Amino acid sequence: MHISELETPAVVVDLDVMDRNLSRMADYCREHQLLLRPHTKTHKIPELARRQIAGGATGITVAKIGEAEVMLNAGLTDILIAYPIVGPGKARRLAAIAERAKITVALDSEEAAAGISAAVSRLGAKVGILIELDVGFNRCGVSNEVEFVTLAKKIASLPGLEFKGLMFFPGHFGVEPQERAMLRVRVNELLDRVAAACEREQLRAAVISGGSTPAAYEMNLFHRVNETRPGTYIFNDRNTVGVSAALLDDCALSVLVTVVSAGHGRAAIDGGSKTFSSDRYQAEDGTGFGLIKEDRAAQIERLSEEHGHLNVTRSDRRYKVGDRLSVIPNHVCTTVNMHDEIYGVRGEQVETVWRVEGRGKVR
Amino acid sequence: MHISELETPAVVVDLDVMDRNLSRMADYCREHQLLLRPHTKTHKIPELARRQIAGGATGITVAKIGEAEVMLNAGLTDILIAYPIVGPGKARRLAAIAERAKITVALDSEEAAAGISAAVSRLGAKVGILIELDVGFNRCGVSNEVEFVTLAKKIASLPGLEFKGLMFFPGHFGVEPQERAMLRVRVNELLDRVAAACEREQLRAAVISGGSTPAAYEMNLFHRVNETRPGTYIFNDRNTVGVSAALLDDCALSVLVTVVSAGHGRAAIDGGSKTFSSDRYQAEDGTGFGLIKEDRAAQIERLSEEHGHLNVTRSDRRYKVGDRLSVIPNHVCTTVNMHDEIYGVRGEQVETVWRVEGRGKVR
Repeated sequence: MHISELETPAVVVDLDVMDRNLSRMADYCREHQLLLRPHTKTHKIPELARRQIAGGATGITVAKIGEAEVMLNAGLTDILIAYPIVGPGKARRLAAIAERAKITVALDSEEAAAGISAAVSRLGAKVGILIELDVGFNRCGVSNEVEFVTLAKKIASLPGLEFKGLMFFPGHFGVEPQERAMLRVRVNELLDRVAAACEREQLRAAVISGGSTPAAYEMNLFHRVNETRPGTYIFNDRNTVGVSAALLDDCALSVLVTVVSAGHGRAAIDGGSKTFSSDRYQAEDGTGFGLIKEDRAAQIERLSEEHGHLNVTRSDRRYKVGDRLSVIPNHVCTTVNMHDEIYGVRGEQVETVWRVEGRGKVR
Repeated sequence: MHISELETPAVVVDLDVMDRNLSRMADYCREHQLLLRPHTKTHKIPELARRQIAGGATGITVAKIGEAEVMLNAGLTDILIAYPIVGPGKARRLAAIAERAKITVALDSEEAAAGISAAVSRLGAKVGILIELDVGFNRCGVSNEVEFVTLAKKIASLPGLEFKGLMFFPGHFGVEPQERAMLRVRVNELLDRVAAACEREQLRAAVISGGSTPAAYEMNLFHRVNETRPGTYIFNDRNTVGVSAALLDDCALSVLVTVVSAGHGRAAIDGGSKTFSSDRYQAEDGTGFGLIKEDRAAQIERLSEEHGHLNVTRSDRRYKVGDRLSVIPNHVCTTVNMHDEIYGVRGEQVETVWRVEGRGKVR
């Protein structure tokens, strides 16, 4: 099928670009002896997870138990749930999958650890635990080496849990190289203090897992990091380009849309916040809800639920109802999450269609 | 089942509040002799559409053909697609449903009208057409009475189409009563000019359809309006309250979440942009991604995909991992659209679960 036959809005992935993105990250990880554990929240598609494994990834990362269940049922058997599993119901589901696969969970509290221990030990299963360290993003994580060691000792004492190491997410790194270097120094100081404290207490942190696509190609600059969890790199998006972590040509995913109304310096496309998500642009002046590949002078100024509002006053192009455009979204992870299926294309031919099987697994 | 047994995040609807919201709008429409044609994009659940019909609604509104197909298959047979249907594939699907039900489409271009006519007339079916008039929101719609009449005459000449009237969406109305009154005067002037032009040309605009929940209880103040298409009113949300179109007690929908991390003036809940959507607050200073019912002093400052970042520095409450909270989202339509199912609760008992059947029908 030719892409022009796809009804819009349609999420399409350029398979050649995707393959190149996958290879580049795998090569970087091999070069720096980093284990690659891609975060599959970006695509939520088992077939793509399998390709990542085939390309050298050691296992995968997910955020929710429901996503882990989907991936495990599709044959992925080494899964890090980079999210604190809290509550007896979720702990029971975790224990059930821990009987069938190598499961690791990241958490930052005794409450979460104790809950998992109770459920897992009841089944005689084992779950690996990473302690999340807050390196400045201020979302989750223990704050310092004292809290880290206290929690690690607690985990080591709980049945069914195996203390495995440390996870961090440097989500607060900006674009400025100088600022990034300075922040990295601070993160490394903290990582050093945690390592020293673990050594003093004879706690073995075998895994030091760093994350985030924007910092993915700098993971080798963080002390002792031996695992990385990039997500967005498989597709890239306007934000990844905006923070200079990819080039526009590295954006594998775009959304095909149709102009459904046009006139007086504006046009409306058939994709809005229920197609792209309303995630903002994280770079420059923060405006625009995606980049129109065919017309850089047009701006997606606003989104309604099902309309993208184009300001075309600075464009030479004459917009007509029925025109088709392709849009690189601000944030691919939340865009893919809006769709039940996405298309893989080679050149202008649709080669495959994938169901976004992990979508909607919010629990 | 008690609501405390629901795994989080879970979208729950207080059925008593929802019933009251439905009755109030139905009463208002009866009082002012307005036909009620609720926009089902808010819930995308056939059972709720049926309740709206049972409460006196004349038919329903949807945005996409896929939503119309879901609703028609569930027995809803009078459907306005308030969205320009563009492209031969969609026109064919439209023609197919027009054979089975009373279908009306709103559009603003000859291209859209001609495409629908071609597909519909081939099957010998009929589609009613409303012309969208842009009353200032600047999204879709013809701009004035001249464009309106030109397009109406074109539609009247095309086989398979029946010119039915006018649709408008006053989405640009703000909170200020004075400003609203002034804008209403302008919209009424435009509606008057269109009505006069239609009369001169002997075009019968039987339906004058106004929209939007924020302006819903003022629809009787617009000239000749005889149909209204509110959506959000069934649940209401933080934005509806923010623009004074509902009270907090009228918010029927909330999202149950669990605290998964806590400490140092912050807490993280297990709902982020993939649970709530990242739609912003449209009132006051625009900050916050929802309202925590149990603690007005805490703010949902940021959303990651699966985390809500709470700033709790101004709160007296001590946040612990495992605490459950309920959040009124900024925008219910995009929140519901994130979920495969939502729960109906009476008091603290879960009475029903609905599949969001129209979700993901982006085409």
